Amino acid sequence: MVKRFNGQEVEQWGQFELTLDGPSAGNPFQEVRLSAQFQYKNLIVEPDGFYDGNGIYRIRFMPDRPGVWRYVTRSNISELDGHDGEFVCIQAAEGNHGPVRVKHSYLFAYEDGTPYMPFGTTCYHWTHHGNEELEELTLQTLKDSPFNKVRMCLLPTRDMRPPLNLVFAGTCPEDIDKTKFNPAFFTHLESRIKDLMQLGIEADLVLFHPYDKGYWGVDNMDAESDAFYLRYVIARLASFRNVWWSLCNEYDFNSYKTVADWDRLLQLTQGQDPYQHLRSIHNGTKMYKSSNLYDFSKPWITHQSIQHWEAELTTEWREAVAKPIVIDEISYEGNSSRRWGNISGEELTHRFWEGLSRGGFVGHGESFINKETRAWISSGGKLYGESTERIAFLRKVMEEGPEDWMAARQEGSYMLLYFGRHQHAYKHVELRKDALYRIEIIDTWEMTIKQIEGTFSGTIKVDLPGKPYIALRISMIGNVN
Amino acid sequence: MVKRFNGQEVEQWGQFELTLDGPSAGNPFQEVRLSAQFQYKNLIVEPDGFYDGNGIYRIRFMPDRPGVWRYVTRSNISELDGHDGEFVCIQAAEGNHGPVRVKHSYLFAYEDGTPYMPFGTTCYHWTHHGNEELEELTLQTLKDSPFNKVRMCLLPTRDMRPPLNLVFAGTCPEDIDKTKFNPAFFTHLESRIKDLMQLGIEADLVLFHPYDKGYWGVDNMDAESDAFYLRYVIARLASFRNVWWSLCNEYDFNSYKTVADWDRLLQLTQGQDPYQHLRSIHNGTKMYKSSNLYDFSKPWITHQSIQHWEAELTTEWREAVAKPIVIDEISYEGNSSRRWGNISGEELTHRFWEGLSRGGFVGHGESFINKETRAWISSGGKLYGESTERIAFLRKVMEEGPEDWMAARQEGSYMLLYFGRHQHAYKHVELRKDALYRIEIIDTWEMTIKQIEGTFSGTIKVDLPGKPYIALRISMIGNVN
Repeated sequence: MVKRFNGQEVEQWGQFELTLDGPSAGNPFQEVRLSAQFQYKNLIVEPDGFYDGNGIYRIRFMPDRPGVWRYVTRSNISELDGHDGEFVCIQAAEGNHGPVRVKHSYLFAYEDGTPYMPFGTTCYHWTHHGNEELEELTLQTLKDSPFNKVRMCLLPTRDMRPPLNLVFAGTCPEDIDKTKFNPAFFTHLESRIKDLMQLGIEADLVLFHPYDKGYWGVDNMDAESDAFYLRYVIARLASFRNVWWSLCNEYDFNSYKTVADWDRLLQLTQGQDPYQHLRSIHNGTKMYKSSNLYDFSKPWITHQSIQHWEAELTTEWREAVAKPIVIDEISYEGNSSRRWGNISGEELTHRFWEGLSRGGFVGHGESFINKETRAWISSGGKLYGESTERIAFLRKVMEEGPEDWMAARQEGSYMLLYFGRHQHAYKHVELRKDALYRIEIIDTWEMTIKQIEGTFSGTIKVDLPGKPYIALRISMIGNVN
Repeated sequence: MVKRFNGQEVEQWGQFELTLDGPSAGNPFQEVRLSAQFQYKNLIVEPDGFYDGNGIYRIRFMPDRPGVWRYVTRSNISELDGHDGEFVCIQAAEGNHGPVRVKHSYLFAYEDGTPYMPFGTTCYHWTHHGNEELEELTLQTLKDSPFNKVRMCLLPTRDMRPPLNLVFAGTCPEDIDKTKFNPAFFTHLESRIKDLMQLGIEADLVLFHPYDKGYWGVDNMDAESDAFYLRYVIARLASFRNVWWSLCNEYDFNSYKTVADWDRLLQLTQGQDPYQHLRSIHNGTKMYKSSNLYDFSKPWITHQSIQHWEAELTTEWREAVAKPIVIDEISYEGNSSRRWGNISGEELTHRFWEGLSRGGFVGHGESFINKETRAWISSGGKLYGESTERIAFLRKVMEEGPEDWMAARQEGSYMLLYFGRHQHAYKHVELRKDALYRIEIIDTWEMTIKQIEGTFSGTIKVDLPGKPYIALRISMIGNVN
């Protein structure tokens, strides 16, 4: 049996999917090996396929070059082996810019070159509870928000009791079977990843975490089980262009694994993912020194995914490792009794400005405990905080500026000077003598931008409102004749 | 000629002064050696005297024991040698508690045992400008404030131009003579130290600083000149009970001197001061690690005089060295363009609470630049900030609590829990099961204290207002029967 897809069109960075019928006896998840070689001219890419239950097998592929692609399947099961065919990859439609890549060491851009600045948020388990209404609400909230990346987990935590959407076969800790997956979990997750894609939101998938403590038995699996899980996840999800791999959240809180284990799993991910999606790992402990972080200079790490509550250290982290800095956790706005979940909107907004103005990126989260919906960081729902609209304002300011605002600052063409808690009455600023500048005073809390009358050059004194959370945006507008 | 003071009465920790006539030819500051042995029973103390100009010599002494003290002078000039006499030391009057000492490792108390908590402020050069009206205004401001310690300098800075009250002979950089002192400078300074004493305020005298940069030539003197200056200062000022010695401000910004130099000058001060006033030295650089501070464990240091902007590190400093922590500079409230001088009153108040609730002390300063009087930290005058009244409120709270609030917290009899930027909706608190407690919610910014109805015991959940800058005061009021 040979299925042919002559003439089928797949968008660039879209998803081609080949569906095959095969055996359902035994444990196909473990026993069946399946992949396909996809060839464009002399380029060959070979993603793994996966068993989707009920005797159905799928191979997914994300083509990155317009033109004709041919494929042929390979399997240890003759029924699945040797299927060949072709499809045409066509130009990406509007709004499809491809996967996000690192650009200019510290920045990101989509593969088509469009700049991408992560303004992330966190909803760890918004897809696990089978509450469609809440998930739709979460998507609506995200749509109305400035957020273009969501950190979300696959594995359950000890606080999540049955029934829930479980990644492995089984329904409760007693019958969970980690030698089989739950295709329904993934089908549902994939539909949500697609929903996010439609909204222009990256899915920063957290593959492991330390929050199970042996309840489901998913944070203390052996090396073989970890690899089995990772390979399946990558086979199913890597062809979604908006996927990032966050190997673990707060990895250092998992006492079952060592840094060597994480190195191995990161390398496995690097080796298995045909598309080289962004890859990082996220620390748990609060530390003062870069040296306590995971060593982000390791070659399988694409960017620095940091937990730290002091955005001021961005400068230090940039000096330590020339990879983008994403402070994915910097404390959440809210009123939780936990230390990480109760800063004010003012404080979170401040930390965003501090991090961005130093050339890093900062992630959002909300943890209000006595509102209509439960904590956003766990379940999604609605946002109640005061930071969200300020982050939207900041994003607008950043997008109006040069793509590489730190380089522009170096060359003197653009400066975003943020004064944080300092409430200057005035400030001396050094500008180039051979250039003319426009200066605007930004009130980051009030979300106002006020241009100072006139143009400026050389060393100048700028009167400031003498209150905290003020920034200056200084833009070169011409030369001095 | 023998002057006798038979029957003269001097208050305990008051000041006895013997005045003698002597030579005025040559340079008496350098050439005349003078001291006196003061004896009470078998205790002998020998302070140096000093030349006060116009052929007048003085020896000052602060007796610490009630009873009859006898003295006899010693000098290399026969005219000044061998003067003897006696006086009666009487009980201290109300409000005179003696000099401040270290107590229970981390705390302070006056010599009579009365607890003393430093709530300091800074007016570096308020006595230098010969502006009596401004000095009186400064004293009035201090009187109305919560501040009971003032950091103040003796040496001028490069920004201070003639005419000014100069510690050495001369009027300008061209004719300054560092082999002679200016008695008028000291007479004036002493009257201000006495004014502070009357107000119950300690004079934390900053003996050196790095702000001259060669203009007056007072921060790059040789070792002999440094010692000459120090001995004179101690001879004149040590007998004022409210004096503290701060060897240098931002010592590490003085490139002319090494840590070994400061060690030597601190040891000299320790050796010369008959009363062992509090002694420390104050750092300039911002650092993350205790190890970068001056090594406060050195035996000639009585307390840790720190500059750092993170009061949270108090906990670390307490662990590092078992001496009181006084964060004398933690940034000033104001609107200065300098990074150290423009935090909000809210932020400074927050830092005070953070430091005090962790068992340290914090110092105040103000640097508003466009008000009726110039920056308080330089010249005194008026205070304009929002922190002063909140610091007064904090002082009241601290004085209502146990003397050793950290020990009380350890034993479970009293807790001052400060939540800073965290805005909890509630908080679980562990109390002793065998005791009953009263709980009060303190709004540190609004300066309100609200008792929660009922009494509490064991592990309890306390509802909180869900806003930043809240503290809980928990006081044991009895036992569970």
